[in-house]
Amino acid sequence: MFTTIITPRFGDIDALGHVNNIVSAGWFELARNHIIKIFNPGMEIKRETFPLVLVHSDYDFMGQLYFNCDVEVRTWITKIGTKSFTVCHEARQQDRICVKGNAVVVHYDFGAEKSVPIPEDKKRLLAEHLI
Amino acid sequence: MFTTIITPRFGDIDALGHVNNIVSAGWFELARNHIIKIFNPGMEIKRETFPLVLVHSDYDFMGQLYFNCDVEVRTWITKIGTKSFTVCHEARQQDRICVKGNAVVVHYDFGAEKSVPIPEDKKRLLAEHLI
Amino acid sequence: MFTTIITPRFGDIDALGHVNNIVSAGWFELARNHIIKIFNPGMEIKRETFPLVLVHSDYDFMGQLYFNCDVEVRTWITKIGTKSFTVCHEARQQDRICVKGNAVVVHYDFGAEKSVPIPEDKKRLLAEHLI
Amino acid sequence: MFTTIITPRFGDIDALGHVNNIVSAGWFELARNHIIKIFNPGMEIKRETFPLVLVHSDYDFMGQLYFNCDVEVRTWITKIGTKSFTVCHEARQQDRICVKGNAVVVHYDFGAEKSVPIPEDKKRLLAEHLI
Repeated sequence: MFTTIITPRFGDIDALGHVNNIVSAGWFELARNHIIKIFNPGMEIKRETFPLVLVHSDYDFMGQLYFNCDVEVRTWITKIGTKSFTVCHEARQQDRICVKGNAVVVHYDFGAEKSVPIPEDKKRLLAEHLI
Repeated sequence: MFTTIITPRFGDIDALGHVNNIVSAGWFELARNHIIKIFNPGMEIKRETFPLVLVHSDYDFMGQLYFNCDVEVRTWITKIGTKSFTVCHEARQQDRICVKGNAVVVHYDFGAEKSVPIPEDKKRLLAEHLI
Repeated sequence: MFTTIITPRFGDIDALGHVNNIVSAGWFELARNHIIKIFNPGMEIKRETFPLVLVHSDYDFMGQLYFNCDVEVRTWITKIGTKSFTVCHEARQQDRICVKGNAVVVHYDFGAEKSVPIPEDKKRLLAEHLI
Repeated sequence: MFTTIITPRFGDIDALGHVNNIVSAGWFELARNHIIKIFNPGMEIKRETFPLVLVHSDYDFMGQLYFNCDVEVRTWITKIGTKSFTVCHEARQQDRICVKGNAVVVHYDFGAEKSVPIPEDKKRLLAEHLI
């Protein structure tokens, strides 16, 4: 499991006094840096060689998030297929689960514009975080 | 069905040359202004009286979106329950469906911190957009 | 002068009940699509050929912006130099000027990593919006 | 001087392969959490009692910022007036200054809709970070 600590920004708080729901999308994207590092250790992003594309994401908003304390995003893998895998995220504040969501990521060749099998060594690295 | 036309911004385009996936969350939020107007015709947002809260959203990324032409977001209602309803969104570019997603919205009393029944007159207005 | 009409989103409103100040940065970026079109009529963005880079921006927040009505962003040119030009933006709501700001844009060759003179035909197109 | 460490997100990188300029606005906002804490130690944001409003910000973009390493935002105070103060920010990557900017913050009474003098104890806390 990967952990990412995030400090809410003033503008993340909406008129209802809690973190606006679309902010979570950015937090979970940041948490997936851990996944990108598995496939792209140098963290260089070039269309020609970047091997991942997001095809699905979902979010369940279970509790309100506030400005005044840090958020812990927990990230792990729930499924590893031949050409895709599923990432699960949880955003917690003071140990309350506030948002839970999934992201389905496809191993992709942008040049050929098609999905391609995940190499075995990357599968093993993902499997270390499979729950 | 509601229609919202959106022009992509330079910064919406990511290093892979297409619109970054989290941008859709903001587009669909904007499209839900039509829904907010049903419940809150004056479009004033106060925690004490604002009656809606998002409890779920999901996104299927079906095609790449580019910088060079406008996006049409189509929005309609797919389900009306006692205390909640489901909104469906589609983002199209040149008539290709690029993102499709749902938002589950609960009719909520922020003061009492609990869900409350949707008034009949609001249900009727939602039902005009039920597909 | 260019005009861009923008509808505020729910999440643009912060806990103080008005549009958060950093939202203007995105609005002015969108308004500069008109400028990008002058230099890049096909609106394709590739690092190898995109000819503009922002080197400065500033914002004066003069009035509060609210959720319940559209924003008009007016954009014009205030200075055209050999290798750079200055864009001025104003965000108005119900004809009140709420934000005013400038952006200094350099004509740039990303391959050579240096600024290059603005072609005469582009200068003429910019000059049509010089106030 | 306050220090804030920020990890760039995938979507912060634009089509030119570097961090999009408007991202800095959010980073500097986050860095001002240190300032908010001086005025509002409980970090609760309510329109009735929140005492600060931003009236100006500016940004000089001096170097390109990339995805593959963390950003250090340094924040300090450059001027303390009767009713306002100026915050200076610098975003550095691998010790290169990439963005430098200022924010002018007014001590404000949202109820009365007017600026009010900064209390002496808050001035002293700000003065600890005056350079």
